[in-house]
Amino acid sequence: MNQPAKIKHALSVTREADFAAWYQDVIAEADMAEESGVRGCMVIKPWGYGIWERIQQQMDARIKDAGVQNCYFPLFIPLSYFAKEAEHVEGFAKEMAVVTHHRLIADGKGGLVPDPEAKLEEPLVVRPTSETVIGAAMARWIQSWRDLPLLTNQWANVVRWEMRTRMFLRTSEFLWQEGHTAHADRADAMAETLRALEMYRSFAEDVLAMPVIAGEKPENERFPGAVATYSIEAMMQDGKALQAGTSHYLGTGFAESAGIRYQDREGTQQFCHTTSWGVSTRLIGGVIMVHGDDDGLRVPPAIAPQQIVILPMLREDDGDAELLSYCEGLRTALAAESALGERLRVLLDKRPGKATQKRWAWVKKGVPLILEIGGRDAAGGQVSVLRRDRLWREDGKVNFVGMGRDAFIAAAPGEIEAIQRALHAEAAARRDSQIQRGIDSLDALADYFSEENRYPGWVELGWSRPTGAALEAVVATLKALKLTIRNTPMDGPAVSGQCLFTGLPAVERIYVARSY
Amino acid sequence: MNQPAKIKHALSVTREADFAAWYQDVIAEADMAEESGVRGCMVIKPWGYGIWERIQQQMDARIKDAGVQNCYFPLFIPLSYFAKEAEHVEGFAKEMAVVTHHRLIADGKGGLVPDPEAKLEEPLVVRPTSETVIGAAMARWIQSWRDLPLLTNQWANVVRWEMRTRMFLRTSEFLWQEGHTAHADRADAMAETLRALEMYRSFAEDVLAMPVIAGEKPENERFPGAVATYSIEAMMQDGKALQAGTSHYLGTGFAESAGIRYQDREGTQQFCHTTSWGVSTRLIGGVIMVHGDDDGLRVPPAIAPQQIVILPMLREDDGDAELLSYCEGLRTALAAESALGERLRVLLDKRPGKATQKRWAWVKKGVPLILEIGGRDAAGGQVSVLRRDRLWREDGKVNFVGMGRDAFIAAAPGEIEAIQRALHAEAAARRDSQIQRGIDSLDALADYFSEENRYPGWVELGWSRPTGAALEAVVATLKALKLTIRNTPMDGPAVSGQCLFTGLPAVERIYVARSY
Repeated sequence: MNQPAKIKHALSVTREADFAAWYQDVIAEADMAEESGVRGCMVIKPWGYGIWERIQQQMDARIKDAGVQNCYFPLFIPLSYFAKEAEHVEGFAKEMAVVTHHRLIADGKGGLVPDPEAKLEEPLVVRPTSETVIGAAMARWIQSWRDLPLLTNQWANVVRWEMRTRMFLRTSEFLWQEGHTAHADRADAMAETLRALEMYRSFAEDVLAMPVIAGEKPENERFPGAVATYSIEAMMQDGKALQAGTSHYLGTGFAESAGIRYQDREGTQQFCHTTSWGVSTRLIGGVIMVHGDDDGLRVPPAIAPQQIVILPMLREDDGDAELLSYCEGLRTALAAESALGERLRVLLDKRPGKATQKRWAWVKKGVPLILEIGGRDAAGGQVSVLRRDRLWREDGKVNFVGMGRDAFIAAAPGEIEAIQRALHAEAAARRDSQIQRGIDSLDALADYFSEENRYPGWVELGWSRPTGAALEAVVATLKALKLTIRNTPMDGPAVSGQCLFTGLPAVERIYVARSY
Repeated sequence: MNQPAKIKHALSVTREADFAAWYQDVIAEADMAEESGVRGCMVIKPWGYGIWERIQQQMDARIKDAGVQNCYFPLFIPLSYFAKEAEHVEGFAKEMAVVTHHRLIADGKGGLVPDPEAKLEEPLVVRPTSETVIGAAMARWIQSWRDLPLLTNQWANVVRWEMRTRMFLRTSEFLWQEGHTAHADRADAMAETLRALEMYRSFAEDVLAMPVIAGEKPENERFPGAVATYSIEAMMQDGKALQAGTSHYLGTGFAESAGIRYQDREGTQQFCHTTSWGVSTRLIGGVIMVHGDDDGLRVPPAIAPQQIVILPMLREDDGDAELLSYCEGLRTALAAESALGERLRVLLDKRPGKATQKRWAWVKKGVPLILEIGGRDAAGGQVSVLRRDRLWREDGKVNFVGMGRDAFIAAAPGEIEAIQRALHAEAAARRDSQIQRGIDSLDALADYFSEENRYPGWVELGWSRPTGAALEAVVATLKALKLTIRNTPMDGPAVSGQCLFTGLPAVERIYVARSY
C-alpha cells in the first residue's frame, strides 16, 4: 500500500480508502459474482465459480484420501427434526426458510399465490446444515462396531436466513461441504475432528496460500451442542479475522438425540461419538481479502481457473493469422507443462476488443501470468510477460518483461510455483507483523483497538481459560470493544504470566480480534 | 433370463417376476440409495453417489470442451418470475415447493411453527428449473453481438413436487445439470441445441454403455415454450422407453419474456435465440434398468466407483499378514494401469467379514471385476477372477477363472474395456431385437401391446407429422393404449408408405412405446 502516487490503479477505490467498498469492487470488477435479485442470494459467475470448482476438486481429493465417502441428503428437513433439537440445544438458530405449500394457483388478478388446498401437513425447512437428517441416516446405518467409523461428507447448498448479507462472506444461500462422522469412542472421534482441522489448515496454507491459525474456539463460540469446536482463523488485510473453517467434536449428545447406537465387541449397546466439519464459499471471500490489491483480485495459481492468459495484439489485418498461429503454438507448448502437480491452465483470449482493455480485465481477475504478444514478438520468437504479483515497476509503469519464447516456456512452471509461494509469504509476513504481543491491561487493549489505529490486527494474550459466568464477563467486556476471542492455537509454546481478564495464571494463549 | 433353473440368484425377486419390485431391490441390495423419511426425497448413498460423481465428472469435461462455462444461480426464485411465465406458457407446471416464512418459533406445546411475524412479502419458489432466473441474468449480461454466444451451465439440485415418486426416476428433489445458452440467430442456437443432443447421445453410448435413439419429440411433448425439443430415448429391459436427456431450442420466446436483447453489428436491437438442455440423476435409473440382472446391478466400468475389488480370504491367523501384503502389491500394480483413458480404480476390501458374503455384496453392487485371493493363490502367484458380466458357468457355478498374477495385471485394462463394450453390445442387441417394424393398422398396434406380450419393446412407424387437432387425436388414441410417441430419429433413412394414424403419406419415422 506504499506504492508511488503516480500509479493509476485499476480499481476506483483503494483498500486504504474504504476496505468494504473495495471488497465489493473487486468482486464486481473481477466478474466473480453479483446480486441475483433474490434477497441474500448471489449469482456466482464463471470466474468466481471456477475458483470454487478448483477449491472443491482439491478439497474433495483430500476428503477422499482420508477414507470419507460422499453421499447426498435431502434439501428439506421436516420441522419435527428441529423441534427435537430445539429442546436441548440452547442457541438454536431459528432463522430458516420454511416451505409450507406445494402448489401455486392463479390469484385471478394475473398473479400466482400458494394454493391454500396444497398446504403441507408438516412444514419443511430448507437445510441450514444437515446434522439432524444425517444423524437419522446414521441411526439406520450403524448396528455394530464393525460399521464404525462411519465417515460421510456431502457437497451441498444450505440456507440461513441472514439479515445483513455480503457476497461470499455471508449469504442466505451458500455452497459448502459438511463432513459428518460417527465413532466408537471419544479418542477416535477426537482424532477425526483434529484430522479435519489439520486438513483445513494445510489446505488453506498450501492451496489458498492463506496463512491461518488452527486452534480451539472458546466455550462461548462453540457450535450449539458441541463439546469442542476448532477453527482455522485467517487475517484479512484490514486486520480483521475470518473464521475460514470449523471442525466439531460433538460427544455423544447428537447420537443420543438421533439414536445413533452400536453394539460393541462385548455385545453392549453404546452411543456413538460424532463429529462434523465444514468449509464453504466463504473461503473465496477470504482469498479476496488476503490476496487482493488496489488493482483487483490476485488468485493463487493453485485455484486459478486460468494460470496464464495469452493476449494477441490483433490489428484486424492480414498479420493476424500468423500472430494467432504463433500464440496457439505457445498455448499448446505451455499447456503441456506442469506446475503444482497439474498441467498448466492456459487460455488464448482471441475475443474481439482492444488488447489493453483485455489486459486490465485479466489483471482485475488476478490471473497469475499475462502474456501480450504483438506481431514483432511473433516474428522474433519473443513473449512479453506480466506477473500479477509484480504488476508495477518502480517508475509506475506496468512491469512487462520481454523474454525468448522457449526460455519462457521452460521457466513458466517455476514462475507459477514462485507466485504461489510469494502470495503466501506476503500474507504470512503481513499477518505476523500485525499480531501484537505484550499488552498487559484492559486499558492497553482498548487503546490498541481505538479508532485511530486503522489496521490493528490481532492481539495475542495469555489466558486462564475461565468458563461459565467468568467467561461470559470477559465476552461482555470484549464485546464492548467490538472484539471476540478467535481461538487458542494448537501446540502453542508454554505460556507464563497472568491472564489480563481474570488475574489468574495464564494456561494457554488466545487471539483477540475484530472479525467478519 | 434363460439361465438354467439351478442358479440361485443373489436377488430375491427377478426381472421376469416383477420388474418394478426388482428395480427397488437392486437399489436396496446394491446400497445405492434409500428413502429419506422426507416425502419424495432420497438419500443417495456412497455407491449411488459415486456413480453420479463419475457421470458428473465426465459430462462436465464434455460441457467445458464445448466452451460452456459453469455458474451458480439462486435456489430460490421469486413468485413474480413465474407469474410472467404462467401468462404465456400453456402447460405451466404448478407443483412446486413454496417458501412463505423465514423463521420458526416455539408453539408453546414443545413444537415449532412458522413465525407469523416472519411471513415473506413475496413467497419464494424452490427452483424447478432455472430458465427464469438465468434469463434475468442473461438480460443483464448481454449488450452486443460481441457477448454472443453466451454459454452457461449449472450443476444443481431442483425440486418438483411429485405425487408418485420412484428413486432416481422421479423424485421431488433431484440433481442435474442445466445448460442455458443465448445466440444471435436461429442457426447458431439450433446448432447448439443439436450439439448438446449429440453430446448426450455419445455420452450415453460411450460412458453409460446405454444405446439410445436421439431425435425430435413431437409437438405435444415439447418443453412448454420451446420451438423444438429433442431427446435421447433408451430402452429398459421391460421394453419401456426412458427419456434420458433433453435439449430444447426455445426460439426468441424466452428472450422476449426475460428481455434478453443484443445490439447487432448494424446497431439494431435484436432478441436472442436461446436453448436449454439437461440430464439428471435419472440417468442412474436408466443404468440400473438397462444393465442390471437378477444378481443386482452391473456398472459400466467407465462410471464404476471401483472397477476391480480385491477380496483377501482372511482366516484371522498368522497367514493373514502375508496374504494382505500380496493383495496390497496386486492393488498397487493394478492401480498403475490405465483403461478407458484413466487409471484403474482398484479397491482392496480388508473389512472384517466372510469372503463369500463380501463377494455377493460386490456382485450386487455390480463391480466389473472381483478378485478372490486365498493363501494358496498368494503362495503360487495366482489370482482368481470373476467377471460380473459372465457371472455364471453353464453348470450353474460361479464363474471364477484362475490366472497367473502377472498375466492378469497385463490383461486387466483389456478386460475392463471389453466389459464396457460387452454391456453396450448386449443392450444394443436387446434393444434392436425389441423394435418392431411393419405394423400397419391401429388394431395390429393395440394387439402388439396387449397384456399377454410382456416385453413388447418399441414400434417404429411411418409418420405424416400431423399437428394441432390432428396430432391431439393421435395422442388420445395412443393414450388409450398407454402409449406415447417417443421421438423421430435424427438422420433416419428415407421413408415411404403411409401414416397408420392419418392415412397420409409418411414423411418420417417415429417410435411408439410405453414409457417411464
